[in-house]
Amino acid sequence: MLKTDHIRKENIEITDSFWKKRIELIRNQVIPYQWEALNDRLPETDPSHAIENIRIAAGDKEGEYYGMVFQDSDVAKWLEAVAYSLEHQTDSELEQTADELIDLLGSAQGEDGYLNTYYTIKEQEKRWTNVRDNHELYCAGHLIEAAVAYYRATGKRRFLSIMKRYADYIDRVFGSDEGKIKGYPGHQEIELALVKLYDVTEEEKYLNLSKFFIDERGKQPHFFEVEKKKREEDKPFWFNNDHAYSQAQLPVRDQQEAVGHSVRAVYMYTAMADLAVRTNDDSLKKACETLWENVTKKQMYITAGIGSMEFGEAFSFNYDLPNDLSYTETCASIGLIFWAKRMLDLEVHHEYADTMERALYNGTISGMDLDGKKFFYVNPLEVLPEATEKRHDQKHVKPIRQKWFGCACCPPNLARLIASIGHYIYSKREEELFVHLYMGHETTMDITGQQVEFRQETNYPWDGNVSIEVSPQTDHFFTLALRIPGWTNKAIVKINGEVIDHEPIIKNGYVYIKRTWKANDKVELSFEMTIERVYANPNVRHNIGKVAIQRGPVVYCLEQVDNGETLNAILLPESSTLQADYDTDLLDGVVVVTGEAERIVDSSWENSLYQSAKGEMTSMKIKAVPYYAWCNRKPGEMIVWINEKS
Amino acid sequence: MLKTDHIRKENIEITDSFWKKRIELIRNQVIPYQWEALNDRLPETDPSHAIENIRIAAGDKEGEYYGMVFQDSDVAKWLEAVAYSLEHQTDSELEQTADELIDLLGSAQGEDGYLNTYYTIKEQEKRWTNVRDNHELYCAGHLIEAAVAYYRATGKRRFLSIMKRYADYIDRVFGSDEGKIKGYPGHQEIELALVKLYDVTEEEKYLNLSKFFIDERGKQPHFFEVEKKKREEDKPFWFNNDHAYSQAQLPVRDQQEAVGHSVRAVYMYTAMADLAVRTNDDSLKKACETLWENVTKKQMYITAGIGSMEFGEAFSFNYDLPNDLSYTETCASIGLIFWAKRMLDLEVHHEYADTMERALYNGTISGMDLDGKKFFYVNPLEVLPEATEKRHDQKHVKPIRQKWFGCACCPPNLARLIASIGHYIYSKREEELFVHLYMGHETTMDITGQQVEFRQETNYPWDGNVSIEVSPQTDHFFTLALRIPGWTNKAIVKINGEVIDHEPIIKNGYVYIKRTWKANDKVELSFEMTIERVYANPNVRHNIGKVAIQRGPVVYCLEQVDNGETLNAILLPESSTLQADYDTDLLDGVVVVTGEAERIVDSSWENSLYQSAKGEMTSMKIKAVPYYAWCNRKPGEMIVWINEKS
Repeated sequence: MLKTDHIRKENIEITDSFWKKRIELIRNQVIPYQWEALNDRLPETDPSHAIENIRIAAGDKEGEYYGMVFQDSDVAKWLEAVAYSLEHQTDSELEQTADELIDLLGSAQGEDGYLNTYYTIKEQEKRWTNVRDNHELYCAGHLIEAAVAYYRATGKRRFLSIMKRYADYIDRVFGSDEGKIKGYPGHQEIELALVKLYDVTEEEKYLNLSKFFIDERGKQPHFFEVEKKKREEDKPFWFNNDHAYSQAQLPVRDQQEAVGHSVRAVYMYTAMADLAVRTNDDSLKKACETLWENVTKKQMYITAGIGSMEFGEAFSFNYDLPNDLSYTETCASIGLIFWAKRMLDLEVHHEYADTMERALYNGTISGMDLDGKKFFYVNPLEVLPEATEKRHDQKHVKPIRQKWFGCACCPPNLARLIASIGHYIYSKREEELFVHLYMGHETTMDITGQQVEFRQETNYPWDGNVSIEVSPQTDHFFTLALRIPGWTNKAIVKINGEVIDHEPIIKNGYVYIKRTWKANDKVELSFEMTIERVYANPNVRHNIGKVAIQRGPVVYCLEQVDNGETLNAILLPESSTLQADYDTDLLDGVVVVTGEAERIVDSSWENSLYQSAKGEMTSMKIKAVPYYAWCNRKPGEMIVWINEKS
Repeated sequence: MLKTDHIRKENIEITDSFWKKRIELIRNQVIPYQWEALNDRLPETDPSHAIENIRIAAGDKEGEYYGMVFQDSDVAKWLEAVAYSLEHQTDSELEQTADELIDLLGSAQGEDGYLNTYYTIKEQEKRWTNVRDNHELYCAGHLIEAAVAYYRATGKRRFLSIMKRYADYIDRVFGSDEGKIKGYPGHQEIELALVKLYDVTEEEKYLNLSKFFIDERGKQPHFFEVEKKKREEDKPFWFNNDHAYSQAQLPVRDQQEAVGHSVRAVYMYTAMADLAVRTNDDSLKKACETLWENVTKKQMYITAGIGSMEFGEAFSFNYDLPNDLSYTETCASIGLIFWAKRMLDLEVHHEYADTMERALYNGTISGMDLDGKKFFYVNPLEVLPEATEKRHDQKHVKPIRQKWFGCACCPPNLARLIASIGHYIYSKREEELFVHLYMGHETTMDITGQQVEFRQETNYPWDGNVSIEVSPQTDHFFTLALRIPGWTNKAIVKINGEVIDHEPIIKNGYVYIKRTWKANDKVELSFEMTIERVYANPNVRHNIGKVAIQRGPVVYCLEQVDNGETLNAILLPESSTLQADYDTDLLDGVVVVTGEAERIVDSSWENSLYQSAKGEMTSMKIKAVPYYAWCNRKPGEMIVWINEKS
């Protein structure tokens, strides 16, 4: 039985000036552009061949498989983005394209339910022989996520049926029963997808299969070793022969630190939190909390980028956050948002939402240019173009966004995130409604049996004023819990124009307003949004003596186009006053931060490399722009962490 | 005809407390140890197989070639070190071992003079088919250098004859004449060796062959392309398909910036300077000067380490000097010393000798532990052991010295440098004798036909007082030109106890004392040696806000063993007074620098990663030790560049 209340077409209408244009960009620009990419119609880019692979697998075309082993997942993420986009606005043409693609996927599905173009085209007989490396379950997971989203957005069941058939087949293949593969994917993803499938179908077997994958992981004898032996593979695993690459070095409940491939990690942590909520699993909850602490307190860049090492696209170790070598994959910060939202399901605490917000306004949307046409895979915090060109250890860092990638996981992932941004605003727990994010929108929600309209207005993230209109159909008692962002030093809360003393009703950073709400009740929030100088923990050796600028949730950076070259020679005096001004014309409208600074003068060095005298200083005015918007003008140097003069 | 005046056995007797123990270490420890290594008798290290290869090539043994393609060069460098060691002290047993090895080399030599164990054993028919990659001329060069050194040290001609035969053969193979290979080595080395062979034999053909190799380099059509085509090799050259790897991207006279493999570069520049002197080649001199400017003013670490990139063991680009990723190979700094000494032959200028000295007291001898048993290949300026272990981009950096290397170029190179340290003290130009380096020694030199004894005494590098006794057999007029080190702010020069006004007789940083010297004349030099705070050019983005400590020629560092962990959290106030004290018991006796500093307190961060408040500071005393001596106690973190508090 499918639960029809999961269909929530156009449930949340985003009216926010910051996000609405991005959602429209996804709909009008990114989705069509990526469709062209998936169909190999983009000039001067690597072909994707993703749709062609499905056609070949479906028998509609002759040909060879081409692309990464996980090429199907690009299609899945695109379909998921389409689904979310259709929530905002119907588009019969787009929906028809999606339906046809879904039919094509149906044709590519095997009799038994199997659906993976790589194996179907290339190595039929080798299915499930390298679950560690070959992404079958990963692709399945993305397709399941897409199917759930498409069902929710459109109410159409075709795609969901296809994926239920595939999931049922996977359930027959994997598990602890005799004859099944006692294994789990090398790239986690299906775990969180199966929870979504469970939520929408309420079929326990999907939850159990997800739990099986999570519980089995890292146990001895090690599945990857067993599987490898079966393949008669004798070379050591490329990542230092360490299963930490895919967080399989230990059972998940024993893991204390984030290790390995950062996207795999956060996808897994997301599923762990999902399962902990749904199965009341305290040990799993504890593991999630421990890993969250580790990631956000020891391994996260100020932009919410994670994964500081190109090798393995991985976490390296605590406090190791080099700005110019970072990997900080767009997908990893997106995964951090998924995880943060699930942590809020485990416990409402502003720290989870703060991190979610940090990722939303910084390290994720930095992955796309303002036109939605070019993308960063890697989101570094410091770029010297010459270094990315000449230093081999920075080859992964691109100084400008790229049109498309051979491994094109990030662009469609960002598309599905932005298109579904509304999903991250609220959580509901019985008669409590939690507001995590502030952005203009309208929605109607069922709260303990009554429909309540909400209308939020704000100029976030440029100021901290938020107005929320609450209109139940008839007077209705419930709790509205509003997050006070961690970045503000002062919050004012008004109800119907009257300031309330909110301090006594704060818990974990949320103001709990319990009352009988009447139509047109209005809550006004005012979060003081000052320019903050942010310092990094002294264990972060790369940032000692440096300062970052943050205002509200937005992290700033200096670009060469505004501040000249050799950005590291700029010193920002500790005493310098910084000023914030909204500039409508700049970068689609941003608050710019300016201030007096100094610059070490090159010429005072007279062509010497080392000397006892410090260089002369000259005063200058710095101009900082939001990090997410960097590299939308003239390419050049960029830094987030600025040298400070104390 | 061999020039017998090139035999200079025990010409310079080093009595210096700093260097004598190192020379003895080379003789008593390193040479025997490396002999064991070359003979595969070291436990727990990769076998060298270098001697075994020669035995097999000589037909004394059956077996396969093993080791790098340039394994012969390790033997050559060892023999060269033996030669220099024999200059200091006769050792009949060692000399006999060397003679036997030389006989073995003779047996391994082909009828035509060819001598290379790799090709002789493995690919007889493929000689000279891959001069770009396979080091035949490189090995030949090292063997020639060794043969010249052995002849000079012992007067024995056997080794030199072997190598003359090989050089004659190479001269028949390479050159611009019809039928000869119009090519040059991928790894430069033979060019400088042929100049040495010319110096000792006065046979012009060796000079001409060296000149041919240098002049031909980088011309179009490109030899490496021609050669590659002949091999029917179609894959692009691994170093970005760029001949800059071996400085063959342009004719040498057109090269403006140091590029590519740093050891190849400095070996080539050395030969270029050698040739410019001997052929009065102004364009070559100009190229040397341009490249010298570039290397020492834009691409050299404060330790005189060069090569900031692991990829290609190469120069990266101007001002790109990351402290933790540096390659700074021991061999490259050794090559920089070779080059500096040749630049002094082109023009006497203290900058050349200053750099030579910087390399001698820092980035070269740092490559060996104080016991002479373990070696660094890479000499980083910042080490966090966990990063070298966990960050793939730092895998080349070892946090502790190693016993031996699969590619063991550095240890024997360092051995030959230290054993021949006396060769770097002087240059002679007609009636001028230049003193570049200060270290205790005694020597007798022929100056315009008269034997003059010199006895230098000093406690260098720990203080700047030097006494030089000059004793000609009879009164004799000549110029003694004494370098005033670039690091001193004040110099006092006394002759026979009387201070002279030396300012008017300074030229390019040398005090030219022209006089008729009498027996037991005494020159006393006193160079003020203060602790200097050194800053890097602001274009070096990695060192902004940081300071290095230097005293005399010695660069200092902080080690974890003295200063606790998280060395980057230490801030050295600009106003803090630093103090120098000699500690007899520490690190074989060093001057230690101490001072008040501050440390950001970890606990004041309460487990947060980013915050608006700066951390609390606590005062501490820092203790800095000479960089060259780091990692001779408890391994741990090390930094050269210290964060400064202004």
